[in-house]
Amino acid sequence: MSLGVAVIGAGVMGSEHARLVREETSGAHLVAVCDADPARAEAAARGARVFDDAHALIASPDVKAVVIASPDATHAEYALACLAAGKPVLCEKPIAATAAEGMKIVEAELSLGRRLVQVGFMRRFDAAYREMRRTLASGRIGEAVLLHNIHRNLAAPDWFTGAMTVTNSFVHEIDISRWLLGSEMLSAQVFPAGPAGLLMIVMRTAKDEVVSTEVNINGGYGYHVHAQLVGTKGTIEMAPPTHTLTNAAGEHGFGFPRDWIPRFAQAYRDQMQAWVNAAREGMVVGASAWDGYVTSAVAKRIVAVMDKGDAARIALPEPPPLYLGA
Amino acid sequence: MSLGVAVIGAGVMGSEHARLVREETSGAHLVAVCDADPARAEAAARGARVFDDAHALIASPDVKAVVIASPDATHAEYALACLAAGKPVLCEKPIAATAAEGMKIVEAELSLGRRLVQVGFMRRFDAAYREMRRTLASGRIGEAVLLHNIHRNLAAPDWFTGAMTVTNSFVHEIDISRWLLGSEMLSAQVFPAGPAGLLMIVMRTAKDEVVSTEVNINGGYGYHVHAQLVGTKGTIEMAPPTHTLTNAAGEHGFGFPRDWIPRFAQAYRDQMQAWVNAAREGMVVGASAWDGYVTSAVAKRIVAVMDKGDAARIALPEPPPLYLGA
Amino acid sequence: MSLGVAVIGAGVMGSEHARLVREETSGAHLVAVCDADPARAEAAARGARVFDDAHALIASPDVKAVVIASPDATHAEYALACLAAGKPVLCEKPIAATAAEGMKIVEAELSLGRRLVQVGFMRRFDAAYREMRRTLASGRIGEAVLLHNIHRNLAAPDWFTGAMTVTNSFVHEIDISRWLLGSEMLSAQVFPAGPAGLLMIVMRTAKDEVVSTEVNINGGYGYHVHAQLVGTKGTIEMAPPTHTLTNAAGEHGFGFPRDWIPRFAQAYRDQMQAWVNAAREGMVVGASAWDGYVTSAVAKRIVAVMDKGDAARIALPEPPPLYLGA
Amino acid sequence: MSLGVAVIGAGVMGSEHARLVREETSGAHLVAVCDADPARAEAAARGARVFDDAHALIASPDVKAVVIASPDATHAEYALACLAAGKPVLCEKPIAATAAEGMKIVEAELSLGRRLVQVGFMRRFDAAYREMRRTLASGRIGEAVLLHNIHRNLAAPDWFTGAMTVTNSFVHEIDISRWLLGSEMLSAQVFPAGPAGLLMIVMRTAKDEVVSTEVNINGGYGYHVHAQLVGTKGTIEMAPPTHTLTNAAGEHGFGFPRDWIPRFAQAYRDQMQAWVNAAREGMVVGASAWDGYVTSAVAKRIVAVMDKGDAARIALPEPPPLYLGA
Repeated sequence: MSLGVAVIGAGVMGSEHARLVREETSGAHLVAVCDADPARAEAAARGARVFDDAHALIASPDVKAVVIASPDATHAEYALACLAAGKPVLCEKPIAATAAEGMKIVEAELSLGRRLVQVGFMRRFDAAYREMRRTLASGRIGEAVLLHNIHRNLAAPDWFTGAMTVTNSFVHEIDISRWLLGSEMLSAQVFPAGPAGLLMIVMRTAKDEVVSTEVNINGGYGYHVHAQLVGTKGTIEMAPPTHTLTNAAGEHGFGFPRDWIPRFAQAYRDQMQAWVNAAREGMVVGASAWDGYVTSAVAKRIVAVMDKGDAARIALPEPPPLYLGA
Repeated sequence: MSLGVAVIGAGVMGSEHARLVREETSGAHLVAVCDADPARAEAAARGARVFDDAHALIASPDVKAVVIASPDATHAEYALACLAAGKPVLCEKPIAATAAEGMKIVEAELSLGRRLVQVGFMRRFDAAYREMRRTLASGRIGEAVLLHNIHRNLAAPDWFTGAMTVTNSFVHEIDISRWLLGSEMLSAQVFPAGPAGLLMIVMRTAKDEVVSTEVNINGGYGYHVHAQLVGTKGTIEMAPPTHTLTNAAGEHGFGFPRDWIPRFAQAYRDQMQAWVNAAREGMVVGASAWDGYVTSAVAKRIVAVMDKGDAARIALPEPPPLYLGA
Repeated sequence: MSLGVAVIGAGVMGSEHARLVREETSGAHLVAVCDADPARAEAAARGARVFDDAHALIASPDVKAVVIASPDATHAEYALACLAAGKPVLCEKPIAATAAEGMKIVEAELSLGRRLVQVGFMRRFDAAYREMRRTLASGRIGEAVLLHNIHRNLAAPDWFTGAMTVTNSFVHEIDISRWLLGSEMLSAQVFPAGPAGLLMIVMRTAKDEVVSTEVNINGGYGYHVHAQLVGTKGTIEMAPPTHTLTNAAGEHGFGFPRDWIPRFAQAYRDQMQAWVNAAREGMVVGASAWDGYVTSAVAKRIVAVMDKGDAARIALPEPPPLYLGA
Repeated sequence: MSLGVAVIGAGVMGSEHARLVREETSGAHLVAVCDADPARAEAAARGARVFDDAHALIASPDVKAVVIASPDATHAEYALACLAAGKPVLCEKPIAATAAEGMKIVEAELSLGRRLVQVGFMRRFDAAYREMRRTLASGRIGEAVLLHNIHRNLAAPDWFTGAMTVTNSFVHEIDISRWLLGSEMLSAQVFPAGPAGLLMIVMRTAKDEVVSTEVNINGGYGYHVHAQLVGTKGTIEMAPPTHTLTNAAGEHGFGFPRDWIPRFAQAYRDQMQAWVNAAREGMVVGASAWDGYVTSAVAKRIVAVMDKGDAARIALPEPPPLYLGA
């Protein structure tokens, strides 16, 4: 039985999620799209129903599962409504505008006694990160000691503030580092560099690993994500992100995309398929509501200290049993 | 409306095609599988209907499109039956056991006045080949002059004869070279090398390009396909086929798969999606019956001369208008 | 007129320096070798004179320039003796056992009113580092913002203490980072990771750059040095350290050496040639006595705080005019 | 005792050889330079003596060894004069303007009963080629089966004729293929491609190997030499020819030089040192007069058939005992 999926928000990501449901996902079909802008909703719906009220969409009986891709400030409200309706959710990151709101979603799942929310940290479905994690698990590079991440954007938009470097960009590294290492972060320290907002962020984990990350919102040459995991016996890192290599005009090489979508197009597709497969089985895969909350809580602590140069101590509650082994 | 797809043949490729239809393709569902071995058919069907007679499967009203992955000798018979029934076909390569039989399929399509057959040359859906073709079309490397292909297998099975190096392995390069260059082959010459069946095959095209290919059925280290296209202003080639790079045990690098399936897993998936999308629109994409015929005809000419060391002159009929611009 | 060169110390590095003078350097010849072990001295001398007293060697009239490759504790004594004799020196790093002793050599040069000492930080002669510096100077990657270094050894010897990770290994990064960036270090902080002595060291420079370095004395797979320089417009990093790539036994890749000598063989050779050329002209190139002192002073500050996790503030005296523009 | 070296010809290569002797070679010094243009000779000599008559230079008693870098047509005459004088020679390729003249040099050495001539096929001293040969000898990739060479120039000069593609460019591949494989060529066939003089040349050896070479005098993007050796168990190929990798302006990569000198600078240097070392011991290393003759003879056969498309049968005399095991 094909799963009826609705998408809330028809911006760049919402439209792409709607397209994935329509065209690239087995076992699902698009039943509705909601957006404040009806033309935008129409364009993403391509014949599916259009709503301007997200709560009406969530309540609609043919909507069996919901993708939330609306503005960040609305994520928690809609996720809680889906939980109330007992419908599986794929919620774009962040899970909520604040860590406290994120915790409310965790609490709602605890009340329900089951998990329904997946947070859209799509990197967990990227082939390179998955190979890194698999290789670590195989023992081939020994035990993890250090993870060095690089996250470069072409150029930050005008409205990008310093804190957004953490809450908007670096959250991806918080999540993926926890997932790769299977560790929680204990502390973090921020080293700003240069005139254009580059941050070197050094975190320490409960297993005595170090996670160092270059977050470079004005990298100047393109969108580029890299990671290298250092173990006691060896290392694994991403291969250059390209299918082909060119020799032309005196140079050997390949081009970078201008934003993250080409780099993670396949990860978004695989995330959607995995979410649909799990939803049809009544399960959740990928980043949980708890993961979403933790990421927001860590980011919040970093933002609190980043201008002072101090190390942020990170004290997280114990994960509830519902989320253990997830 | 989801497309009801049936698969004939439940060997390695047939089972994978069935799985793709079931689990990874939007807009299609698996309705039936046919195999001489009922247990194998059952395993691939996973609940879909099972046939032991391919003609009964083709005739079944809920079967709207057919994947042919049975032994090569049966391809033509089943493809012709599908054409008679007006059902779209994805036929594993080769289109038929002989070029003459392949021509019968072309003639059947000409009689019908429309195309229904796609030949499963999955490389046309591989991201690296597609980038090479796109870059050539962009003019960035100028006009094509030379294509150098490498096709290495770990080790040939015992039953592999010399001619199979051409009819089984090299046919992929015949097809992809025609597709990349948009050229027909005019001649071919075979240079055997060493004790283990390596062939260097040099072809010339109607546009004065040269296609040189190392077909190495006993490469000794893994499955490895590479291609470099040389233009008047530059070159484009495949990047190393890996997502990650490892440093361990004194060595930097990555591993090769033992066979072609991991290398082309995504291409098979994208081929299936593209075929389903096209079938639902009454169209054919990918390699046509004509392409399948030409590939077989070129391979046949090469086999005829390969033991003598002569250059094979290749004389092909003009493509019928039905296939122009395809 | 060929320069008569003598070498003090006939261990691994001293013997290699003697060989370079004898066999690979234009405009120089080996006149003497000194070592406490006469057999070892004899073996390195290959017919040149053998001393057991370094001061006698330094005083010998045919010795026109001296390479110091004896144990670290003796470097300052011999360097001062060479300065007293007015003879050019190439002194293996460190310049002295302590920063204070290093300063005595600086003071001796200041008294003389000229520079005679080059410290053997051979990385300054490595082709990859030189290209990085040249590219930075060209403006192609904009202004320097971040330098990320990786320094991995196969395995630390038993007698290696924690402080030696800084004074023996990391000193190379202190020197090369100053040279690449043209900046002085203002502070440093050490993040130990894992069970085997890995340090992530983060330094900040007077130009607001960050230098992050993984110093990994038990890397587990080989000797591997890497660096990536991040500018406001782009980045430059070392290419994989190999001349060839192999496909064999299921793997693509290349091998790492077990120690630093193969990696920097050409840099040692080019350093020797540059030193000889400069000595014949009465000049000094490469790392100066001042650079040697600064490196030791920075290392000393880091060792002082490394067990506490504090940031080390680094206060250096102003460089004397003799060393400006060097 | 330092070897007195003289250089005949002060063009691009002669000047570079003179510089290498002066500045980069142990155990040698430059005593004289000869050129028809006295200013050019003076500039290359940098204080060494200047001749306008090469025979006078060869006869001069302080000239102990001679580098011939004059126009091709004069190579044989000067090499024979050096042999008559009993002086070691490093002769730029080709050994002579014709194969017949090359044979005269072989015959002169046979009369002398000893070898004095090294031909400047500098690729034999290139680190990548040397690693390829060493790896083949190690057995790691099994027995050699196929060698695929790529030789691309940025653009051919106006005066470049078709035959020069073979006699000027491809001769490097003839020599290095013989050296890598330890095989003689039995036949060759030329496949021209495209409008700009690209040749795919396929040779077969006496050991049943195939050597395929793309000789691309108008490659359009820079000077680029590559080679991949295929064995029965694996392959070895050159790594990308760069020390660093850059990310800038949307692209990852590195630049190619415009001509061969940067690519082979180190090989020229190592060739000179090896020649000087050997000359001082009364030995010859590198390509012998016999190798020079064979290369010219093979090139001549290829030129004879290249416009007809036939396979050239190559019949070479047996190598004289003087050259066995060289």
